[in-house]
Amino acid sequence: MKLATLKNGRRDGQLVVVSKDLSHAVTVGDIAVTMQQALDDWATVAPQLELVSQQLNLGQRSDAIDFDQNACLSPLPRAYQWVDGSAYVNHVELVRKARGAEMPESFWTDPLVYQGGSDAFLAPRQDIEMGSTDWGVDFESEVAIITDDVPMGCNAEQGLEHIKLLMLVNDVSLRNLIPAELAKGFGFYQSKPSSAFSPVAVTPDELGDDWRDGKVHLPLITHLNGELFGRPNAGVDMTFDFPTLVEHAAKTRPLASGCIIGSGTVSNYDRSAGSSCLAELRMLEIIADGKPSTPFMQYGDIVKIEMVASDQSIFGSIEQTLIHYTGS
Amino acid sequence: MKLATLKNGRRDGQLVVVSKDLSHAVTVGDIAVTMQQALDDWATVAPQLELVSQQLNLGQRSDAIDFDQNACLSPLPRAYQWVDGSAYVNHVELVRKARGAEMPESFWTDPLVYQGGSDAFLAPRQDIEMGSTDWGVDFESEVAIITDDVPMGCNAEQGLEHIKLLMLVNDVSLRNLIPAELAKGFGFYQSKPSSAFSPVAVTPDELGDDWRDGKVHLPLITHLNGELFGRPNAGVDMTFDFPTLVEHAAKTRPLASGCIIGSGTVSNYDRSAGSSCLAELRMLEIIADGKPSTPFMQYGDIVKIEMVASDQSIFGSIEQTLIHYTGS
Repeated sequence: MKLATLKNGRRDGQLVVVSKDLSHAVTVGDIAVTMQQALDDWATVAPQLELVSQQLNLGQRSDAIDFDQNACLSPLPRAYQWVDGSAYVNHVELVRKARGAEMPESFWTDPLVYQGGSDAFLAPRQDIEMGSTDWGVDFESEVAIITDDVPMGCNAEQGLEHIKLLMLVNDVSLRNLIPAELAKGFGFYQSKPSSAFSPVAVTPDELGDDWRDGKVHLPLITHLNGELFGRPNAGVDMTFDFPTLVEHAAKTRPLASGCIIGSGTVSNYDRSAGSSCLAELRMLEIIADGKPSTPFMQYGDIVKIEMVASDQSIFGSIEQTLIHYTGS
Repeated sequence: MKLATLKNGRRDGQLVVVSKDLSHAVTVGDIAVTMQQALDDWATVAPQLELVSQQLNLGQRSDAIDFDQNACLSPLPRAYQWVDGSAYVNHVELVRKARGAEMPESFWTDPLVYQGGSDAFLAPRQDIEMGSTDWGVDFESEVAIITDDVPMGCNAEQGLEHIKLLMLVNDVSLRNLIPAELAKGFGFYQSKPSSAFSPVAVTPDELGDDWRDGKVHLPLITHLNGELFGRPNAGVDMTFDFPTLVEHAAKTRPLASGCIIGSGTVSNYDRSAGSSCLAELRMLEIIADGKPSTPFMQYGDIVKIEMVASDQSIFGSIEQTLIHYTGS
């Protein structure tokens, strides 16, 4: 089934079940008012939502409304945990290569993750407001999962069962703030502003055989200002599958329902597939030409992120314009 | 006023107003069911809670119940953001000195913070369950604030107005996992398991003159297995006050209501005050003797963290025993 959160003037919005073709939706306030509420009681709630989904897709819901992606908040407008992996290790290797640094061998066996801010996600079609383009504003196109409650010490095999929903992410990054911030030793903070998620989150079964081995085997398509920027396959060169990321995240603490885990920038060794962030393209330019020729995002730039199967958008599309923040 | 969250079998517990002497409480479900709900609508809700608080402290609430700190969850049992500073820079300097490293001069002017996990906080009297003492389990006694909605770009002066509640934290840390994790470059994740907060959160006015300059000017008292471990003054040697931490956190993104910001381990140059974590004591031992003589926490060890004014515990006490986690 497919789920979304519509704007309703409240912080957590209104949970809706969305039709497979993203044309219609049904509000389900009698089952769960918000996405978090559904996830908090998933075992009970999911079958009820599934029934609505079946009826909706059979055209049997007279209460169906037109579904408008522009009316969506992120599926979880705010979350209790957002942890982002860097599972496409070839991307990390490339970034290091561009600055002439060796990548530790352990990066191939020990997942790299960072704890992200999760209290104020952007809506999928919301402008990215930023105080300065000098900060090096970049998008990162990624796949993410949402879990139910995961006990501490959960292994990957068990972790697979805790993956309840899939969605896409734009993990907005401020590239020029990263070097100084990481040099301080405590990881990202100011260099990772609010992320945005796809309008729709889907249960893994919606992907059929494209969800296997804990990975999504489909191209992740990014357009910048209307031109194709990249379409690397999210199932290729993903060194750590999602269940392994769940295991890593749960090693020393439990994960609570609604925990979002990201894949990191999707990236293939086959560079003809293009990239999922400007930084990667710039690294390739540095390796080829000694310097980057593509700038980071400028005000007015529009990034679009989606995934398509059988000509049907699965998650709807993230579409965001960078604009100048001048105060609230 | 003083607020707490009682266990009621639900994830977010039951908000109560607590008397100044921590003896009684009143449930306020007609005003706000949970702490997050109160914070989401603080401007409207706070005056109503304040009225209950006044009545309770005058003995005018016939619905008052006995207040039991053991029945508390953390004031926010789960939160949308937990960002922890390292505002007592002398502590950072000491850690570096013990390993023979220079601390960058910028650490005195640019706050160091990390994004913590916030989906599964421990209760104030809950055991710390950990899979291995080889991980180097340590406590960190800290002060924390809770904000309402803070706009992106908020400065420190404005930030002061957004500080709505104060509480204490035990920022549990796994010292032996930290070096390898920080070496990966993305900050803490596995090395920072679930934190616990004091039973009670208080509005700044409860501290009177002890809350000034954006700092809490009282000793933070830590006992380990019943013996005084440290009582450094939280208002002394705090290089970055809380409003400055708010400004830092809000530079590139807004902070949403219920954002928790920690001070980092409270530490004074006057070492006779003792320490707020085992790591600091071990660093002092390394500097004095070439090696540490105090071990990290062992199973059965009990840490107690509190703050007292006029012989009255302000926040109640965090009291946690380290036990062996053997699976859920």
